[in-house]
Amino acid sequence: MSEKNLQIVLARRPIGAAQETDFRLEEQPLPRIGEGQFLVRSHYLSLDPYMRGRMNDAKSYAKPVALGEVMVGGAVGEVVESRHSAFRAGDFVVGPFGWQLYAVSDGSGVHKIEDRRIPLPAYLGVVGMPGVTAYVGLLDIGQPKAGETVVVSAASGAVGGVVGQIARIKGCRAVGIAGGREKCRYVVEELGFDACLDYKAGDLYENLKNATPQGIDVYFENVGGEIFDTVLRRVNPFARVPLCGLISQYNVSEPYGLKNVSSLLVNRVKLQGFIVSDHLARWPAALKDLAQWVVDGRIRYRETVAEGLANAPAAFIGMLNGRNFGKQLVKLI
Amino acid sequence: MSEKNLQIVLARRPIGAAQETDFRLEEQPLPRIGEGQFLVRSHYLSLDPYMRGRMNDAKSYAKPVALGEVMVGGAVGEVVESRHSAFRAGDFVVGPFGWQLYAVSDGSGVHKIEDRRIPLPAYLGVVGMPGVTAYVGLLDIGQPKAGETVVVSAASGAVGGVVGQIARIKGCRAVGIAGGREKCRYVVEELGFDACLDYKAGDLYENLKNATPQGIDVYFENVGGEIFDTVLRRVNPFARVPLCGLISQYNVSEPYGLKNVSSLLVNRVKLQGFIVSDHLARWPAALKDLAQWVVDGRIRYRETVAEGLANAPAAFIGMLNGRNFGKQLVKLI
Repeated sequence: MSEKNLQIVLARRPIGAAQETDFRLEEQPLPRIGEGQFLVRSHYLSLDPYMRGRMNDAKSYAKPVALGEVMVGGAVGEVVESRHSAFRAGDFVVGPFGWQLYAVSDGSGVHKIEDRRIPLPAYLGVVGMPGVTAYVGLLDIGQPKAGETVVVSAASGAVGGVVGQIARIKGCRAVGIAGGREKCRYVVEELGFDACLDYKAGDLYENLKNATPQGIDVYFENVGGEIFDTVLRRVNPFARVPLCGLISQYNVSEPYGLKNVSSLLVNRVKLQGFIVSDHLARWPAALKDLAQWVVDGRIRYRETVAEGLANAPAAFIGMLNGRNFGKQLVKLI
Repeated sequence: MSEKNLQIVLARRPIGAAQETDFRLEEQPLPRIGEGQFLVRSHYLSLDPYMRGRMNDAKSYAKPVALGEVMVGGAVGEVVESRHSAFRAGDFVVGPFGWQLYAVSDGSGVHKIEDRRIPLPAYLGVVGMPGVTAYVGLLDIGQPKAGETVVVSAASGAVGGVVGQIARIKGCRAVGIAGGREKCRYVVEELGFDACLDYKAGDLYENLKNATPQGIDVYFENVGGEIFDTVLRRVNPFARVPLCGLISQYNVSEPYGLKNVSSLLVNRVKLQGFIVSDHLARWPAALKDLAQWVVDGRIRYRETVAEGLANAPAAFIGMLNGRNFGKQLVKLI
């Protein structure tokens, strides 16, 4: 292993929209492992909206990435060297390996990939963090009942696509919101949603009204901003709003002012912000169900794959602007 | 009974702020009762913020008051004539008798007042709808634990004052927000809150920060708007927000745009809109506890009493603008 390690580090904190110059590619010698550690060669890196929050120096549920530090992120890869009793060279693993080719781990937050019926990168998507996010948010917080209407924003994304498909499995009407005709067609034709509305086409409220003749019982929120405000006009009494993300707000300097707060009162809505890492006890059940649904073809997905670590910043910024299609990955090998 | 009935009817629907000319005083002959009905002479009429919503022709949890119809409202009074098996002349009752001197009732939503240790008008306040609202919202939705910090807006009002006092009974730190030094002094000195912040004095965020050194675990929301936005900057992880009212928004034509929505996500806040009438099963337990706390002097309250039905519109508008002090009543006899 005469190879070097490549890393993407945080070069500066963005003000408003993140830019490629906020990141820096660095070459490092290959790290050495100590007793109780192992070395992972990552195959795929996951890019996720939450990473934008870690670039800010703000109080949040997780500490920010320090300047000059490797960007955080999940990845799948292969153990290439081990002095750890539970991991052996040749094991495939998923874990918090960051934006780099090689990572040293002591096993914290790392899971071995045993079920190879499912392709490796899916462990970063439908049978990984985004899939469990969809599962916990929809089922535990949204509590959909058969016959109800579930609406999800960013419906072609890694989380949103799973939300709507689980809603269908549970006997609900699933309506997506996505940006562009192509994404909407995919959401309906490939993922099997009952309808999908293109927010870029205008008239979102009218289109939503037509697509949700019985109103909205669960709104799984990924985007925030004007779309959230519009959806609030269609929620039913006792609707539930799992608040998973606000991607429209991560990359702006001035937050959107939400006007239809009164709908939360009048309709006695229950809105709950959540982070999937608070629900670790649910992961095994979620992953078991999700894996089975993927194997059975009941949950489908799509990936957008950037090639090479050097392209991760551009792919990340593209994702924040909705230019990905389904789960955004970076192929590292 | 040669007397006439006096009624206040809705004369027109307000646009923005309600005005006295939106109401009309009418004189009617005394109504006659049929079999299974009784006639109530009201002693006190309750004025409550929710009534502003009923003046609009908008989809809500209750149907609007029709033009020319008597304004809705709770009142306490005495049965003066009865052809109903469960109510007799001389019974004191609380019920939805509306803005009028005399009302005919079939008993729907009417309760007999048995415990005369508590003064009659309190059945419209601390041991009535506002008290139960405070009880259900704080205990069932807010779920405060001893040692936590509870913040309540409109803290000198009929609901807010009870919220903070129950919070203290449950071992929490109670911090109120109210308009003006006099109200704040009352909230601390008479009601026993740990602190009360005057939002009219400016620097609400700084004052809130000083008054909530451990952050905010429960925010009982009565007002909405900028105060809500400010409080959201101080909520702790896993905070609960019982959303009871948005009085700052009832009487304006343009709603305030709430900016700190991201705090709901980052802090995994549970926000729940509620209406006390959805929680009928909890009323008996709530009223029992509230009555005991009042008798024991653990819950105190204040009333602002307008004299005579003709003054109800002005008193109502005053209340929407915070000119009342504690529970707003109209004395009718």
